[in-house]
Amino acid sequence: MTTDTTPISATDLEAGRRAHELDRAHVFHSWQAQALFQPMTVLAASGSYVWDGDGNRLIDLSSQLVNTNIGHQHPAVVAAIQEQAGRLCTVAPQHVNDARSEAARLITELTPAGLDRVFFTNGGADAVEHAIRMARLHTGRTKVLSAYRSYHGGTQLAVNVTGDPRRFANDYSAEGVVHFMPAYTYRSYFGSTTEEEETERALRHLEDLIVLEGPTNIAALILETIPGTAGIYLPPPGYLAGVRELTHRFGIVLIADEVMAGFGRSGAWFAFDHWDLEPDLVAFAKGVNSGYVPLGGVAIRDEIAATFDERAYPGGLTYSGHPLACAAAVATITAMREEGMVDNAARLGREVIGPRLREIAERHPSVGDVRGLGCFWAVELVKNRETREPLAPYGGSSPAMTELTAALRTGGVLPFVNFNRVHVVPPLNIPDDDLHAGLDVLDEALSVADAHVG
Amino acid sequence: MTTDTTPISATDLEAGRRAHELDRAHVFHSWQAQALFQPMTVLAASGSYVWDGDGNRLIDLSSQLVNTNIGHQHPAVVAAIQEQAGRLCTVAPQHVNDARSEAARLITELTPAGLDRVFFTNGGADAVEHAIRMARLHTGRTKVLSAYRSYHGGTQLAVNVTGDPRRFANDYSAEGVVHFMPAYTYRSYFGSTTEEEETERALRHLEDLIVLEGPTNIAALILETIPGTAGIYLPPPGYLAGVRELTHRFGIVLIADEVMAGFGRSGAWFAFDHWDLEPDLVAFAKGVNSGYVPLGGVAIRDEIAATFDERAYPGGLTYSGHPLACAAAVATITAMREEGMVDNAARLGREVIGPRLREIAERHPSVGDVRGLGCFWAVELVKNRETREPLAPYGGSSPAMTELTAALRTGGVLPFVNFNRVHVVPPLNIPDDDLHAGLDVLDEALSVADAHVG
Ligand SMILES: Cc1ncc(COP(=O)(O)O)c(C=O)c1O
Ligand SMILES: Cc1ncc(COP(=O)(O)O)c(C=O)c1O
Repeated sequence: MTTDTTPISATDLEAGRRAHELDRAHVFHSWQAQALFQPMTVLAASGSYVWDGDGNRLIDLSSQLVNTNIGHQHPAVVAAIQEQAGRLCTVAPQHVNDARSEAARLITELTPAGLDRVFFTNGGADAVEHAIRMARLHTGRTKVLSAYRSYHGGTQLAVNVTGDPRRFANDYSAEGVVHFMPAYTYRSYFGSTTEEEETERALRHLEDLIVLEGPTNIAALILETIPGTAGIYLPPPGYLAGVRELTHRFGIVLIADEVMAGFGRSGAWFAFDHWDLEPDLVAFAKGVNSGYVPLGGVAIRDEIAATFDERAYPGGLTYSGHPLACAAAVATITAMREEGMVDNAARLGREVIGPRLREIAERHPSVGDVRGLGCFWAVELVKNRETREPLAPYGGSSPAMTELTAALRTGGVLPFVNFNRVHVVPPLNIPDDDLHAGLDVLDEALSVADAHVG
Repeated sequence: MTTDTTPISATDLEAGRRAHELDRAHVFHSWQAQALFQPMTVLAASGSYVWDGDGNRLIDLSSQLVNTNIGHQHPAVVAAIQEQAGRLCTVAPQHVNDARSEAARLITELTPAGLDRVFFTNGGADAVEHAIRMARLHTGRTKVLSAYRSYHGGTQLAVNVTGDPRRFANDYSAEGVVHFMPAYTYRSYFGSTTEEEETERALRHLEDLIVLEGPTNIAALILETIPGTAGIYLPPPGYLAGVRELTHRFGIVLIADEVMAGFGRSGAWFAFDHWDLEPDLVAFAKGVNSGYVPLGGVAIRDEIAATFDERAYPGGLTYSGHPLACAAAVATITAMREEGMVDNAARLGREVIGPRLREIAERHPSVGDVRGLGCFWAVELVKNRETREPLAPYGGSSPAMTELTAALRTGGVLPFVNFNRVHVVPPLNIPDDDLHAGLDVLDEALSVADAHVG
């Protein structure tokens, strides 16, 4: 923890205290028990640092909610937002706007051939909702298959295709949503012991489910190419090709949810690029403009877009293709290209995060598994490496995880923690030194977790 | 149409042509048949003007999608966005942020006593979705009552509580949604001929429906205090008080959708202020920051917020309480106060729009009804004043309406048109001269509609 370089003044600290007070009085927070919640204040952020309410500098290994892929306050993107704000903040979605047009052009340059159109939304949940709508109307079918251990957003339909405990309290108004077991080798739902076995069995399960649900009733299969919050578990070799084959065979629209995995996070523009997967619809958000301005969207295969050539698409939103958000996307994609951030993310995964986490795993008995690609890694913690009993139950926390989280914070790292996992998800352009420093903190903090290994 | 004061250069025109080309190639638009759609380009906007792709200046009587309540490019709000962008564009929703805290404080200053907490979303649809979720979990009930001839948003649940033809293609996954007939005196569903009758019969209908659906199953009743896109038809005297009484009597959460009517549009901070209605949840968006940055939210009654004190609220989104959006809200509300925009809107309605529209109605046989408050007015067009046959069918258009829209555009006005209605919904701070000029254009253009009167 370095407090000497902090740009935080006494006035900032005072403003932070007031912000905290007002927050507790007036802000209702996402996913929290409001009275029990003890939020941290962020006074400032720059690159891969944030400063907390006490003026401590933390290394941001969370990228907030895994969205600031270019780090905080990238000067070119800040400048582009300021420039667009001075020119034209907003325009209704039915009018042509240059920032929106250019963002759509740049995004479709990155998506697979044949996905040439973009429907813009405000975030990930509405991207998922509209992707499902397009698939349903294109196919004339209703059912949607999605994986357990997944997250697709917080609105009613999106939270219902989600396969995460956050869905439990929202289990209604979800006509036609069917969940399948994912391919997750470390905790196989199929008793597999190898990746080959997992691929084969998970595909067999998926095919069985399709047949039993009635292939001609299934509009879409949605999956996170690499599931994010649910654990950054990579699809085993052959799995995605198998899913693509099944969806082709049964006429099912394949929706890739790249909200978290996309825009360089995994060391490729889209995670599906690693496996040459060509989905029909791509839901994106977060990394598209690092969340500097709320933006999401759906990249659409031409055949699906054509369904709505002469028939109105029955969906929309006031801020679809918002100029400020789109200008931020144009600047973000441009900066990522010019600064080679996607390649850098791949290098960081290959040369820094992967090797160091594997080395850390050897020394810490609490580490059950490390896995990832690019700047997208999970460290899965266990009470026992043989039984793989998690250090916190599915959907919950534990004293061990709470202590570990606190130790990371005290050590000077802002972590991303979910259940029994710590995710290492820094900005794609984090300086190597900072990344090493952050991993040093993780290394040390894990002794706290080790103490809970039985 | 004034082309001489246009700030548009030859370079701008060329950029606009390129933006149009890219739009047609890559942008998928809200609510449109993509191939048939012929969008207008907006090259620039300032105050109550926009400039189209040919460099023509138009008076914006639409406020885009009835969101730019402070007009385009308000300098104080632009400056606040630029300042916040330079300071901190984004932060995850779980961390305290000063702009968000201050926005929540300002908003709860405007809402009725007892609504002290704000859950921020990206727009109106997700505000509605989360309001419904809060009501369901608070009451432990599932059903939601909403009015026909209403609009509540484009995501699956929001479009299903919507009572507008845009719902038709999305009629599934809407467990528990029940629609009731609204109080709409001009086209009464109850055969009423006076407002008193309409109030009495509409309330009787609502009570009957509640009893027949089972009061203990009904979580929420959602309604636009003044329905917006559906026709700006004002609730007749006593109606809202009756709705409030019924919802109290049956333990139903009353959600006011103030997405369009709120933040000064009707000449009061919230439309429900006109009738001293105190709802339990208020969904807002648009005017809260004039859409300069995507933002929406729900103001929450304390008892409902308390339901989630010790039990996690099962909903959220990456950009909840986005700093840039919240900074824009703080600056917008401040500018609206300092410049007395809400009072000005009331004055414009009372002294300019109302009198002029009534006078216009006298001279144009195509005008069946004019109604509104503040800067929120509808002109309802008919083929025949006696039968009130609309100039375009419910859910559709007609040659007459298409010609009228074109005449408005040619005359130099950017209108908001829906079915058989033209809405007069300018920025709240439109200069009187511009408003008069816009109404002059409407007056002239209506002769096109008159020609279709049978
Ligand atoms: C894979 C995935 N899909 C969808 C979403 C929802 O995005 P948003 O929070 O912007 O609605 C998220 C958010 O974390 C996500 O990780
Ligand atoms: C009354 C009302 N509610 C909800 C919405 C949906 O808002 P958004 O388009 O931001 O999702 C609108 C949008 O026009 C609206 O007018």
